[in-house]
Amino acid sequence: MHPFAPGPRDRVAALGEGALIAAIRRWLGNVCPPAPAGIGDDCAVLPPAKRHQLLTVDPVIFGRHFDAKVPPSAVGAKLLKRNLSDIAAMGGRPRVAVVSLCLDRATSVAWLQEFHRGLAATARRHGVALVGGDVAEAPRVLIASLTLLGEGAGPRVLTRTGARSGDWIAVTGRLGGSLTSGHHHRFTPRLAEGRWLARHPEIRSMMDLSDGLAKDLTALTPRGSRAALDLAAVPRRRGCTLTAALGDGEDYELLCAISASADLVALRQKWRRRFPTLPLTVIGRFVKNPDLTTATNALPVSGYEHFRPTS
Amino acid sequence: MHPFAPGPRDRVAALGEGALIAAIRRWLGNVCPPAPAGIGDDCAVLPPAKRHQLLTVDPVIFGRHFDAKVPPSAVGAKLLKRNLSDIAAMGGRPRVAVVSLCLDRATSVAWLQEFHRGLAATARRHGVALVGGDVAEAPRVLIASLTLLGEGAGPRVLTRTGARSGDWIAVTGRLGGSLTSGHHHRFTPRLAEGRWLARHPEIRSMMDLSDGLAKDLTALTPRGSRAALDLAAVPRRRGCTLTAALGDGEDYELLCAISASADLVALRQKWRRRFPTLPLTVIGRFVKNPDLTTATNALPVSGYEHFRPTS
Repeated sequence: MHPFAPGPRDRVAALGEGALIAAIRRWLGNVCPPAPAGIGDDCAVLPPAKRHQLLTVDPVIFGRHFDAKVPPSAVGAKLLKRNLSDIAAMGGRPRVAVVSLCLDRATSVAWLQEFHRGLAATARRHGVALVGGDVAEAPRVLIASLTLLGEGAGPRVLTRTGARSGDWIAVTGRLGGSLTSGHHHRFTPRLAEGRWLARHPEIRSMMDLSDGLAKDLTALTPRGSRAALDLAAVPRRRGCTLTAALGDGEDYELLCAISASADLVALRQKWRRRFPTLPLTVIGRFVKNPDLTTATNALPVSGYEHFRPTS
Repeated sequence: MHPFAPGPRDRVAALGEGALIAAIRRWLGNVCPPAPAGIGDDCAVLPPAKRHQLLTVDPVIFGRHFDAKVPPSAVGAKLLKRNLSDIAAMGGRPRVAVVSLCLDRATSVAWLQEFHRGLAATARRHGVALVGGDVAEAPRVLIASLTLLGEGAGPRVLTRTGARSGDWIAVTGRLGGSLTSGHHHRFTPRLAEGRWLARHPEIRSMMDLSDGLAKDLTALTPRGSRAALDLAAVPRRRGCTLTAALGDGEDYELLCAISASADLVALRQKWRRRFPTLPLTVIGRFVKNPDLTTATNALPVSGYEHFRPTS
């Protein structure tokens, strides 16, 4: 469905702001609590938080993160799932979200309805309350930006730092071909997996893969080390080349560093019992590199970089 | 300064995403703490929160909330101040913010630098840490959306509900002409004033004025009542008509309901001692309206409504 409607009666301009906000509350249903806990006051009022809190923001942009071929409900789901993946990457639990919508006046009301239904269904599945937002007019675009607030699920939040030389590098699921396969909007954020990994002290650091393994791996690589990958071990999505598995973005899998002293066999056995259908694959380790003073690695591809022309 | 640069070397496309994020961290300086408390991990990690929390989001959009005549530093300041005004409206205290930037590739690096300097200066002034964000490419636009997390400053958070028939209606400052006078980016969010009002039990409900008094007042009006305004008492910005004071948006002043049983003279005396240069003006009261079953009021103008053509 195209997000811009040809007929004037099917556009948000026919509704106006007040009616649009009322419609959004209706579409969101019970994932939007009554004000001031939800939409309707100057701020959403949230209860105090006993644990460490996690805050992240990611948008979906028409023409970049989705096109007219992606069902609007999948776009709404993707908007939340992109952010859920960031909470998963810290081993956390999501709590509440706010959405900033920037819309052309020609945006289709039917498209927005399906978008919000997909967003609400995903929020319900993951126990997220949609507590507020903003709607503004912007020419020729359709952008939704979601901010997600979560909390640590246990005593430990896993960050990108903490890996040491000698640590194993492991990844969940299979990589590559996200855009061509539809994985970029059908994926499941690895929340339960992230919490499981954060509970295991052998895991030293973690992140989610969004710009491609080759690029993202540098963020986990300790200073003075490089990532030595067993390229044949990198788990590829069906039909994907190694280059695609290393360079494509939007995998939304977890990448982690496992302590060199961990009992890998026992850890992977426990993993398989808990997550029998999702592989956790060791793909290499961090090794000392006496020639380098800063973290780096030398892979054949470089991952996705915004603003740069893709050559 | 125009936000889109004519020369290719002055555009964000020449930097690329990694260098742009590094530059943003540099421009923000000490208001951006090191990761994982600030930019650089999948989420920002925040300490637990003992008090009620406040969450709000508002964007600034090129061509809507600012144009090439507004200095970029004022745009950055406005982005944060719009959200600070929402925290002020609950009587709260701001804590941390994340920013989602959607930019055309032609966006001027110099413009972005000044924008972030203005944002950082305002953040520093109000004790806000900028802890994360996202940068994405979007064609032909420049949109920054900021999510602000705050907390209640005292035992009470003031919401939009709570006013009763008979309550006085009061407003801070002067209204109207925000766009023509430059107030829309030069205003000071009424944070100290909001906290002072929330500490006084005579204040029953509060909001900030962003779409114009006539429109915003309906949100504070109790069910079965209407707002009876003393139109001559409405404080106008110099040179403004009554219509402008009632209908213009972006006042960013506080509107509150004061209990009918309050000692207005004593309250306003205390206010003047604390805020000698800012008027707090009683402009009317809520009165029973037996003909109405829902909240409404009948004013000559209607305030700003997004998506509708302004006639």
